[in-house]
Amino acid sequence: MRYCSKCGREVDRKVPAGDTLPRFVCESCGTIHYQNPKMVVGTLPVFEDRILLARRAIAPRHGLWTLPAGFMENNETTGEAALRETREEVCAEVELGMLFSLVNIAHISQVHLFYLARMSSPHFAPGAESLEARLFAEDEIPWDEIAFRSSTLTLRHFLDDRRRQAFSVHLEDLAGNSRH
Amino acid sequence: MRYCSKCGREVDRKVPAGDTLPRFVCESCGTIHYQNPKMVVGTLPVFEDRILLARRAIAPRHGLWTLPAGFMENNETTGEAALRETREEVCAEVELGMLFSLVNIAHISQVHLFYLARMSSPHFAPGAESLEARLFAEDEIPWDEIAFRSSTLTLRHFLDDRRRQAFSVHLEDLAGNSRH
Repeated sequence: MRYCSKCGREVDRKVPAGDTLPRFVCESCGTIHYQNPKMVVGTLPVFEDRILLARRAIAPRHGLWTLPAGFMENNETTGEAALRETREEVCAEVELGMLFSLVNIAHISQVHLFYLARMSSPHFAPGAESLEARLFAEDEIPWDEIAFRSSTLTLRHFLDDRRRQAFSVHLEDLAGNSRH
Repeated sequence: MRYCSKCGREVDRKVPAGDTLPRFVCESCGTIHYQNPKMVVGTLPVFEDRILLARRAIAPRHGLWTLPAGFMENNETTGEAALRETREEVCAEVELGMLFSLVNIAHISQVHLFYLARMSSPHFAPGAESLEARLFAEDEIPWDEIAFRSSTLTLRHFLDDRRRQAFSVHLEDLAGNSRH
């Protein structure tokens, strides 16, 4: 950020009075421009015993597989975001289940949330940002070609919980020293 | 938003190619300025059988009571945000417990998260943005003077769950027709 989005003058980087962190501040109109983490919300869609993944048609991680997820929009709920992303990426209508994982990725200021989701029929297709959508049984999951660690963690927790038939919410913090 | 924060020219409001929602777009440098929901993160701090609340010294809802919570910052995790806000608002060091509530407030594009938290001693004090901090037993909670509905909901779920000695994660969507 170099210019004030409200008045167009150049901003400074400084700690505002009464604050503890540096912010972009406009000395001209007085606006303090706060910047906050973004939420990425998605689902783990299940049809019978298989899981639906999408192969990415866009950067980053073009060609790799992911759970359907994307940036939450203003004026929607986390549940609405999860359903919308599932519709957009794999053209599937799902029934949302429990909130299943929350993954902090602090070094890129993101929080990823995944809901379990049930598909009542095997209807799906790649959306505009996907090359391919496919149902995977546990032993077919392409672990070496998963795009994001939050998908890998969420898949592993789901398979573990399913094996034990005991599902709970999983919180994870990812560090910045390996790929997210 | 009226000016591009990257180049300082006036932005337009339009749906970018391949997108579905209107965004602030800079025709001059090509930047698309996405705007996303913000997360508010806090705790429900418990010492023995009492709950710690803060009375707000700032707008909005000056003088009303709230669970310690505030906007999550870039480059921190939800757990770090919860601990920091608890330190800032009620000067208490707590031990984080489970993620307890997630409250969507779509009409103001916020997601509120609360963790249960344990205080090992009754050490606390009002922080810079609080008039007062106080431990409340269940029958002392000032229900008519709680600042935000996300605090009220989280408190009610906690008391219900404690009565049954069965704690689970609670998801709520707040509508825009009453005060948040």
